Amino acid sequence: MFESAEIGHKLSKTAYRAAVPALRAALLQAQVGLFEKRKTPVVVLISGQDGAGKGETINLLNEWMDPRFISTVAFSEPSEEERERPPMWRFWRALPPKGRIGFFAGSWYSEPIRERVESQISEKELDARAEQINRFEEMLVNEGALVLKFWIHLTKDGQKKRLKALSADPRTAWRVTPWSWQRLKTYDQLHEVAGHMLRLTNTAAAPWVVVEGSDDRYRAMSIGQVLLAAMQKSLLETQSPRPVVAPMVRVDIDGRNVLSALNMQQALPDDVYKDELAKWQGRLSELVRDPRFKNRSLVCAFEGADAAGKGGAIRRIAAALDARQYQITPVAAPSEDERSQPHLWRFWRQLPRNGRVAIFDRTWYGRVLVERVEGFCSESDWLRAYSEINDFEHEIIDAGVIVVKFWLQISQDEQLRRFKEREQVEFKRFKITQEDWRNRDKWDKYQQAICDMVERTSTGEAPWTLVEANDKNFARIKILRTLCQKLEMALQDKRWEAGSGLKRDKGGKKG
Amino acid sequence: MFESAEIGHKLSKTAYRAAVPALRAALLQAQVGLFEKRKTPVVVLISGQDGAGKGETINLLNEWMDPRFISTVAFSEPSEEERERPPMWRFWRALPPKGRIGFFAGSWYSEPIRERVESQISEKELDARAEQINRFEEMLVNEGALVLKFWIHLTKDGQKKRLKALSADPRTAWRVTPWSWQRLKTYDQLHEVAGHMLRLTNTAAAPWVVVEGSDDRYRAMSIGQVLLAAMQKSLLETQSPRPVVAPMVRVDIDGRNVLSALNMQQALPDDVYKDELAKWQGRLSELVRDPRFKNRSLVCAFEGADAAGKGGAIRRIAAALDARQYQITPVAAPSEDERSQPHLWRFWRQLPRNGRVAIFDRTWYGRVLVERVEGFCSESDWLRAYSEINDFEHEIIDAGVIVVKFWLQISQDEQLRRFKEREQVEFKRFKITQEDWRNRDKWDKYQQAICDMVERTSTGEAPWTLVEANDKNFARIKILRTLCQKLEMALQDKRWEAGSGLKRDKGGKKG
Repeated sequence: MFESAEIGHKLSKTAYRAAVPALRAALLQAQVGLFEKRKTPVVVLISGQDGAGKGETINLLNEWMDPRFISTVAFSEPSEEERERPPMWRFWRALPPKGRIGFFAGSWYSEPIRERVESQISEKELDARAEQINRFEEMLVNEGALVLKFWIHLTKDGQKKRLKALSADPRTAWRVTPWSWQRLKTYDQLHEVAGHMLRLTNTAAAPWVVVEGSDDRYRAMSIGQVLLAAMQKSLLETQSPRPVVAPMVRVDIDGRNVLSALNMQQALPDDVYKDELAKWQGRLSELVRDPRFKNRSLVCAFEGADAAGKGGAIRRIAAALDARQYQITPVAAPSEDERSQPHLWRFWRQLPRNGRVAIFDRTWYGRVLVERVEGFCSESDWLRAYSEINDFEHEIIDAGVIVVKFWLQISQDEQLRRFKEREQVEFKRFKITQEDWRNRDKWDKYQQAICDMVERTSTGEAPWTLVEANDKNFARIKILRTLCQKLEMALQDKRWEAGSGLKRDKGGKKG
Repeated sequence: MFESAEIGHKLSKTAYRAAVPALRAALLQAQVGLFEKRKTPVVVLISGQDGAGKGETINLLNEWMDPRFISTVAFSEPSEEERERPPMWRFWRALPPKGRIGFFAGSWYSEPIRERVESQISEKELDARAEQINRFEEMLVNEGALVLKFWIHLTKDGQKKRLKALSADPRTAWRVTPWSWQRLKTYDQLHEVAGHMLRLTNTAAAPWVVVEGSDDRYRAMSIGQVLLAAMQKSLLETQSPRPVVAPMVRVDIDGRNVLSALNMQQALPDDVYKDELAKWQGRLSELVRDPRFKNRSLVCAFEGADAAGKGGAIRRIAAALDARQYQITPVAAPSEDERSQPHLWRFWRQLPRNGRVAIFDRTWYGRVLVERVEGFCSESDWLRAYSEINDFEHEIIDAGVIVVKFWLQISQDEQLRRFKEREQVEFKRFKITQEDWRNRDKWDKYQQAICDMVERTSTGEAPWTLVEANDKNFARIKILRTLCQKLEMALQDKRWEAGSGLKRDKGGKKG
């Protein structure tokens, strides 16, 4: 992995000075081109040993290019708000929007590598993290991002020399911390772990570029040229990436599916409903005040046909909670800021802190439902979304988030009845639009999309609960009861109890 | 202040049950109307004594209305990310966008009242905070928000009774903390301080509504009705509020102004420039690594005519900093999310954490420059913006942020020369558009706007530095030198040194 970066590359001052002006001009031009297209975010990871020149490189690139369209993010200790959310949250919130460049000093690689060097996780656990990272980066690339990963390499001797040189210069001495010297002692372990990690994450979509770090000019020129070439290539591309996806194939011999198998006649009389409602609301309000919930959070996902009763069900849940504890996010078309990010970004952004509840009225499944059926995204976009969604849910569940997903099913007749009813009630009329009527025409296509969604995303850790919703009483109680039972079960999991170690480690162990 | 809420208001169960359905329907309808117009954010403060029923009220309103378009925010201890920014930052980030309702459990009133009750601040200091709050709320209202402030009042006896009742019921006992009982002991002080604060902040734009809290039904119905009436009234309004503003009047007898008084011939030869550049960049890099900067942050604001050299000057500053420490924000037209908030929101959002630097390439002064000249906002909007901007800068300076503002002035001839030059260089061509040429035609209008801006916003704590920028060398050195000198001076201010108490208190003392 590192051999090609141990051969003593050097660039003379004369050659460097001669080459820099043209490189700068070209970088700036490529940067402007990308900004004007606003199609590609550029994610640049600058990694490597301590003293390898990561900071200098980032500063130099900021100087060479237009820093107004660059964001540089350093990741050290996570802040309180970051610690209370899944580990990847801090990286999602730092992603550059389309047309801009984000330099990452430290990244999703830092923690796994550090933890493995310090023997906090096993090699198997490291491998699992590498796999997670690969899927994350593949998603970024499929969403249109340019992902460039640089590893600045130094030999052990080279690192010692650089640390000494930095310490000697009063202007740079502050960069060398006791931790840097400590790192020198663990050079061999780091070398081995990083080598292993780089090999596993050296994917076609986001390959590593290992750069020899001992000569400042050579290092800067290499990274600058790779960055330039990648940006120029991206500018020439007229098509978005089209990942290899298998077409959706299904077997339908007897016309039966998970939806048609539902018993839609189920109903609850009003008096039973009232008792059950009080019982489960009471139970829910106890569960979210359970001390064990302090280190967890809850995400409720609601999907369903128009007029299936999502809003009413959500209000029955909300009524059991303290308004200061939950947030309901109605999901409609993405805003401008949201459109300039990967499609899951707007959901990451709404993830609750520990001890809180986030209820989504429509969700990240929009991509495989409305966007699929209406053709708002390409076929390969929605085909790859299933596994991206599974990864998303896995990542947050692994960090202690409790995820409960409901599909509310109603029959075509019942929907028609409710549409007509809505048209009669003045303040409900806004709920029914021409679009709702048009959607009805696509009923079969939607049913198919729902079946595919359930088949591909009803995972062991986040199964779908299909709710027979022709009778509102029955549906609301089934939802509340399921929610309570799932919460109760999840709270018994001791992995996130206070004092049981970092959530991140736990995540890794399960990873 | 509280007399009208001590007369034993009650509402019978029968009357309540009869009235609620119509109220709910009307509230929902008003809510939908406001959401569809997307012009008005509704900010609802629910304040009052402990046990007065604030939480119950918020929960009930969430139940009555469509909770998907409501956000409820509780403010307890500020988080780490909040503590490292000016006190108002947490409230700005929680403001509801246009068309939505935000319930605030706890608000910008909580801290000043608490601090005064605990004698941490003097009555004079409380008055100063009240004045700040009035200006903030006036700004919200002028920006189109509906601001509703409820104070739920209980007599001392009433409070004791409610706390006992809450404690007795296992479902509500958790709400009563030792702190609640403590509050009962300080009832008289709270009563006095709150009464004083309410009187001072009972403005025409955002008056208080004091509600008797002892009867649940009466309390809920009162607040519901006031909320409904306010929303309905807002729906009927076809015009945005037009605050009383005095027209811009100016005296121009001798044709001289701050811009024409500048000596635009000033220049620096290259060799002097190089030495000075190294000197001041070195100084700057020392200053931002000064331990005293750890509790402060720096905001650099750059304004100037097109091609005045803002970008080049900013790059010279950035070169002296570590890229992980600064963020450059280029300010262009606001995004969709930003347009649904008060005009200063997008700048609050970019405020740096402690120890960090935020550089704005164009700023919050856009409203009194381009928006004024091009007619992108109404005359009263830009006329009131001067004092809103002064308030904004005062608030953040008061919290330890160091604000340095530069206007880069070039002559019309020099601008023309630079425009032509830009057209010759391929990668600079993007910088020059038809709009730039059109702006030139409005040169005189812009000069006038700049003079008015300097006159009204060059405050003692945040003065403008006018930079003669016909010569880039001269301009860049003047900017770097000024920045270093201002930073150096600001760091001598001991108010924000570690261990000198809460910044917020200090802010109050100065306020």
